[in-house]
Order: sequence, then structure tokens, then C-alpha cells
Amino acid sequence: MTATPTAAGPAAPPARAVLSRDELHGSLSDPLLDQMTFLNEVTLRYPDAVSFAPGRPYEGLFDPDDVPAAFAAYLAHLGDTLGLGPEAVRERIFQYGRTKGFINDLIAGQLRRDEGISVDPEAIVVTAGAQEAMLLVLRALCAGPDDVLLVASPCYVGITGAARLLDIAVVPVPEAPGGGLDPEALAQAVRDQRAAGRRPRACYLVPDFANPSGASLSVPARRRLLDVAAETGLLLIEDDPYGFFALDGRARPTLKALDTGGRVIHIGSYAKTCFPGARIGYVIADQAVAGPAGAGLLADELAKLKSMTTVNTSALGQAVVGGMLLRCDLSLRAANQAVAAFYADNLRTVLAELAGAFPPDRKHAHGVSWNLPEGGFFVVVGVPFTADEQAMERCAREHGVLWTPMAGFYPAGGGQRLLRLSCSYLTTNQIRVGIERLAAFIAAERGRETAAPS
Amino acid sequence: MTATPTAAGPAAPPARAVLSRDELHGSLSDPLLDQMTFLNEVTLRYPDAVSFAPGRPYEGLFDPDDVPAAFAAYLAHLGDTLGLGPEAVRERIFQYGRTKGFINDLIAGQLRRDEGISVDPEAIVVTAGAQEAMLLVLRALCAGPDDVLLVASPCYVGITGAARLLDIAVVPVPEAPGGGLDPEALAQAVRDQRAAGRRPRACYLVPDFANPSGASLSVPARRRLLDVAAETGLLLIEDDPYGFFALDGRARPTLKALDTGGRVIHIGSYAKTCFPGARIGYVIADQAVAGPAGAGLLADELAKLKSMTTVNTSALGQAVVGGMLLRCDLSLRAANQAVAAFYADNLRTVLAELAGAFPPDRKHAHGVSWNLPEGGFFVVVGVPFTADEQAMERCAREHGVLWTPMAGFYPAGGGQRLLRLSCSYLTTNQIRVGIERLAAFIAAERGRETAAPS
Repeated sequence: MTATPTAAGPAAPPARAVLSRDELHGSLSDPLLDQMTFLNEVTLRYPDAVSFAPGRPYEGLFDPDDVPAAFAAYLAHLGDTLGLGPEAVRERIFQYGRTKGFINDLIAGQLRRDEGISVDPEAIVVTAGAQEAMLLVLRALCAGPDDVLLVASPCYVGITGAARLLDIAVVPVPEAPGGGLDPEALAQAVRDQRAAGRRPRACYLVPDFANPSGASLSVPARRRLLDVAAETGLLLIEDDPYGFFALDGRARPTLKALDTGGRVIHIGSYAKTCFPGARIGYVIADQAVAGPAGAGLLADELAKLKSMTTVNTSALGQAVVGGMLLRCDLSLRAANQAVAAFYADNLRTVLAELAGAFPPDRKHAHGVSWNLPEGGFFVVVGVPFTADEQAMERCAREHGVLWTPMAGFYPAGGGQRLLRLSCSYLTTNQIRVGIERLAAFIAAERGRETAAPS
Repeated sequence: MTATPTAAGPAAPPARAVLSRDELHGSLSDPLLDQMTFLNEVTLRYPDAVSFAPGRPYEGLFDPDDVPAAFAAYLAHLGDTLGLGPEAVRERIFQYGRTKGFINDLIAGQLRRDEGISVDPEAIVVTAGAQEAMLLVLRALCAGPDDVLLVASPCYVGITGAARLLDIAVVPVPEAPGGGLDPEALAQAVRDQRAAGRRPRACYLVPDFANPSGASLSVPARRRLLDVAAETGLLLIEDDPYGFFALDGRARPTLKALDTGGRVIHIGSYAKTCFPGARIGYVIADQAVAGPAGAGLLADELAKLKSMTTVNTSALGQAVVGGMLLRCDLSLRAANQAVAAFYADNLRTVLAELAGAFPPDRKHAHGVSWNLPEGGFFVVVGVPFTADEQAMERCAREHGVLWTPMAGFYPAGGGQRLLRLSCSYLTTNQIRVGIERLAAFIAAERGRETAAPS
């Protein structure tokens, strides 16, 4: 961190009390954390490398002036549309507010407009990013040591991290080859877990362009998944950060839009459709919960838990995202057309450059493969060698290109010869150079393995 | 929630899957949650009552225009002082950032200026309010079922809530009569817990004007507490939201300022000194942690956990609070003089009105007592009857005044005949009317108990 003239002077000597990592919570000893730290360090060590590593959105279309403009739009909405006086506006912005959030009606309007989801604003909890929504949902549903969370595998590290923080066991359910989560494999996993005396509480998945696999569920598979959930009495936790970014520009129905039986808890993020720095996510939890004083909404139970995690979601973040929603007349899909075209161009470029670098004969001879995602940020490449952190570091050092090993995304192991390419944060030229360098790395690794003493 | 013309239309019918509260996590069945829900409902039902209930800060000195002004001050700092170009500024505001936060240097500067605390900015984690800091610290320190958290009792519900969320056992240590946590009682509690085979990990306390008791630790007691922590190998979790608000305007040394042995984890909040809607808190965790790859800071371990709770703290909140810090030249104590005077006037008024309503003879005859806090938001009143939710509801209905029962703040029971008055959010006249009404309520309850069949 750069020191400023007004900031603290020389730091105090380090405090003397010494803790040991192994006396701290077990989640801190997860090898995945060290792996992520290592990958971040490598990224910092090779700042000139072409990086297919970070899955972050592109912020180049924003200007800092957009922030006060969106804030002003939200204030105008409070005053002009809702008729709030100056005191009520001041309280909304500066004070503690409803734990559930205060832009729930705007979010419900956006979901209706963009996704065809009809939801009571009271069934929505606004959260400090989708990550907090995951934490709250897992905490509500998992009560004891026999409770397990099923996850599509390979799996986003945010959900497995939240589960580790809460000491919740995670059971992976494999994605089908070339597609998303296999509904029949899910049904079998539920049966197996119950036979073993455990209580499967929910299954987490990303139906559209999943992180890390890029895979999507077909619409028939979505319907079958909802049937499996109803048949087995399971809840589905749907996470949908990438839904707007289809290559063909067409909207797929979310599981929540198809959910007539109340089986789906839907987690949304404005990190990719507005911007990450706002830290605004949400969860739709319209399931009824029976309690001693009658039935309420699961959303209200999640809000109680939120009072123990962050109390409120930033009023500033809510106001600015609320203003952005108002300024696009509640259609973020329309507002995201330019950035969606940017991502689609990048994904097409990655796939085209891979095809150019590995024409069919060479692809076969080199033992290289990749999937063909229908949208999103990620492509998975299969290579004929172990694509671990050491290989990634060699690739950075010798070839100037970065990517993410896939093995860390498999809760039960696997993926050793797979790597993830993210294309959301690169220019066309960077992608061209990067794939060329990746091809050279793959050739070198093949030679390296051949040359290694057997 | 008020519907807007552009928001969702009629809500969808409630989803059919029905959960039962008793299959959800145990923290959701805590009676305290139902009590808090009940108290909130009563508050809403009697909007014209004088409310001594909410412990929230006064936001009347703010104007919504302060937000873009502070944001602009932070942007100017990035550009003019740190020399960041437009792309780096855009990335700072809109993108994912360091999990630890990006205003750590400004916070360290403010701590040096206002508290005489000298801390490495890297030992600070910026959090989504102090509540998230509590959650992270408890999660890091408590690894297994034998780990317990000691708390000063009566105790702030935020820390007991975080402990419940993580299934961590809480052991109350009583405050000394008329003062804060008793260091000798703490030493005894550590010995007792160890003798019972448990591992006491830390003790949570608010040394200045605690919520809910209003009690403060004397400086000798602070020094003794640090000695006890060193002797017993215990960590102290210091929470300091009210330190600026002393009646005499004089700064007390925080435990962290006196901490030469690295025994104190210090949690700070900008909810009272800037504003709650920013949701910016922080934790100083400069303890060394030995791990397989060498020693690091506890702050880095907390940041790893934060990647599983909220990933980043809102960039907007950080930028606006950062701008507020810059605009007051890193002295929030100076910037808070007007609001501190407001709180001090209110606290003096509450104490004077209590003394006026209950002169010594009447006070004795009525069995009424109260403490004499040296600052902060809270006064505790002892009454000769059970001051529970039902009594509070009668008081609201028949006398038009609201307060908070103290019993919910005692993790092991107690406080049935105590009530908390908060004076941070009232005018002088409201306090006068409110204490008059409270006195009438107390007289009526005495009569009621006398008249009740024995």
C-alpha cells in the first residue's frame, strides 16, 4: 500500500503474541487458500504476462462520474416518485435501515423485466455481494453435523469457501460431459446421502456458463432438475452471475423462472451487470417457513442471520445500484448490451484462436481439447500433462501467460489436466498473443515430459 | 415497502415448499431474535411514543450532498496525492479490490491522530461494519467444540449473535458494580474454563460507555486487564464505538493504545463517527501467526476468511469514508465535536431529569436506581418490577414511552428488573417528556403489583 503524507508514520514493531495457524479455524488451513495466495503472487510477479486468470468483469465502460449521477438518480426517485421529504431521505442514506434492504422493489422490477421472474419484494434480501447471500443460505439450511450441501462439480470456490467457514460438508455431483449438472446424478447422490444417514439440504449450481467449467444446462435438463428436486424434496440454490452473456444474445429461462413448486433459492449478483465495487447482491427466498408464531418467508429468516453478519447492506451501494436500475428503466439486460458484445467477441476470439493454434490433426496429436461454452467468461482446456501451480508458474515465467489450474475447483479431486481460461478482461490482441504463447507452452511441456527421465 | 410505478406488479403466489423453523440452524430459534422482533413491532405500533429504545447515532447533522463531496475528495486524493491515473482510479472504484481494503493507510493515520495508536496499515482489515469484524475474529480464533468466547456481561447482542451463528459457546464474565469488566473475575473465569477442559480463546468487551450498561473501565483496570491477558495467555477483543463521546470531552486510552504485548484485537466502527449507512468498520489484528510457510499477520488470516463472507468491503463506502477522513485531516475526534456535544447534552439531560423525577427520598421509596455513565448513549435504570417485553408494551400503550429490557443482554440470565435508556436520538424536550412519562409508568407498575392478587 502506498503511504500518503497524512497517513501513519513508521509502523509499530510487530506484536509479540504469537498464534499458530493450526490452532485457528480449519478453513484457514485449506490447501486451496494457499493455492490461491500462490496464484495471486505469481500474477503479481509477472505483471506483463497475458492473464487468462481473473474472472473479473470489465470496468472500462464506466466513469467515476457515473457514481454521483446514479446516486442523484436514486435521491430524485426517493423525493419525486416516492414523495419522501428531506428528513426521510437523509435517514435512508445515512442511518441503519431494514436488514432486508431498501431497493428490493427495484430489484423485483428488474427481475420481472429482464428474467420474467415475478417475486414479492419482501421475499428478497439485499446482501453484501452474492457471497454473503451464499453464507446466509447455507447457515439457514444447515443445522447439524449430518447436514450436507450438494454442489455441481467442478464448483465455484465461493460456495465451497462459505461451506468450509461454517463447517458444512460438501458432496460433489459431477457435471454431465459437455453439459451442466446431471439431474440423474443428483437424484442418485440424494439417495446415497440419505442411505448413509445424512441429510442433503440443497444443491448449488450455476445453470448458465458456470464458473469454472463454462457449461450450461439445457432447458429440458432444467425442467428435469426441478422435477428431481420435487421428487427428492431437495432445494436448489441457483447462482446466476453470467446469464446476460450468451454468445447468441438470447435469454435462457432461469430455474427460478421455471420454478412453480418453490424449490429454487435464487442468488443474484450485480457485480457483473453493474459493478463489483458496489458489493450488491441479493437472494430470492420465497419459501414458506413454519414457526411457533405462524408461517413467514425464508427471506425473513435470512435477514435475521444477516443481522449477525453485516447488519445492513451498504446504503451507498444500494443507492448507487438503485440509481443505475432506475436510469436503465429496470432493464439491465438492455444496459449491458455493449459489455455483453465485448464478452461475446472475446469468447469467440478465444475459441477461434484455439482452433487456429490447434487444427484438428495437431489437436489430436497434441492431446489437447477444449469445451465450447455458449457464453460467459470461461473456457476449459484439457492438456496432456499436469496443469498445476508449478506448471502455471513455469508458463508465466517462460511464456508470459497466466491461467488457473482446474484441480482446485473439484471438491473430491480431479481436473489435474485441465486449465481454465477467462476472457473477460482482455483485448482481442492480448487474446491472440496469449493463445499463441499458450500453444508454445503446451508444446514445451510435451517436450519436457518426453525428455524427463522415466 | 412502497411500490413504485416501475416496480413489480402483483406478487406471485407464495411458493409451496414449506420449511419448518426447527429444521433450520439453531441460531434462528434463539428467543432473543423473537424478542427483538417483538420490540421492533411494538416500536412500529406506537410511532408517537418517545423512544429510548434504538441505540442508533444521530444523522441530523448530515446532508445527502456530503456523499458526492466526500467521494470527490477521495478521488482527488487518488489523483493528486497518490498520482493514480484515470484507469487506476476507475479500477479502484468499480472493480474487485484487495480483500483487506484500500483505505487502511487513512484509517491508520486517523488512529494515530485520534487515539495515539501506531499500527501498520497492513495489520488492518476494512470490514462491512464492525459486525463483520466480530464474525471474522470469532471464526479465526474458535476452531472446535471446546473453544469458548468470554464476554463482559451484560453484553452487546452483536457479538453473542455472531457466536451463535458459528455455534461458539459464550461464557459471561460479570461487570464489576459501577464499573466495567472485572479483571479478577476474568482471570477466575479463564481458570474455571480450563479446569473444565475448555479452551477460552478471547474475551470481548467495550471499555468505554458499553452497550448496554454504559459502564467504563478505569485506566488502572485497563492496565490490570492487560496483565491478566498476558498472565493467562488470553486475547482481548476490544470494541470501541463510543470512545469519542465522553461527558468530559477527554479521551481515555484504548486497550490497544496500552497494549505492548500484542494481546488486543481492536474492532472499530465508523457507524457513530461517520455514519451507519456506509457500513465501514475495521479490525486491527497485528498478532503474528506462525504457519507452514513462515509467520504472517492475523489480519491476513482474517482477510482469507473475509473472502468467504463478503469478498470485499464496498468500494463506495470505503471511498466516501476515506473522503470524510481526508476532509477532517484525519481527525474524526475534532470533526465529531458538535455531535459529541449533542450526545453529552442528551446524557446530562437524562440524568438530570431522572434526578428531578426521583429525588432521593422518592427514589428510595420507589425502589428506583440508575447508573451514572461517563459518556456514550446508554443509562441503565433499576425498577422494582419485572421490566420485560410485556411491561415495555404496557408502557408504550399506556404511557407513550419506549425502552429496552436488559434481560436479553445477559447470556446466562439476569437483569430482569433493569431497563436500558438510549438518549442518542432524541431532542431535549423529548427526553423531558419521556422521563416524565417513564416516572408515571413506574408509579403505575408499582400500584399494579400492589393491586395484583398475591
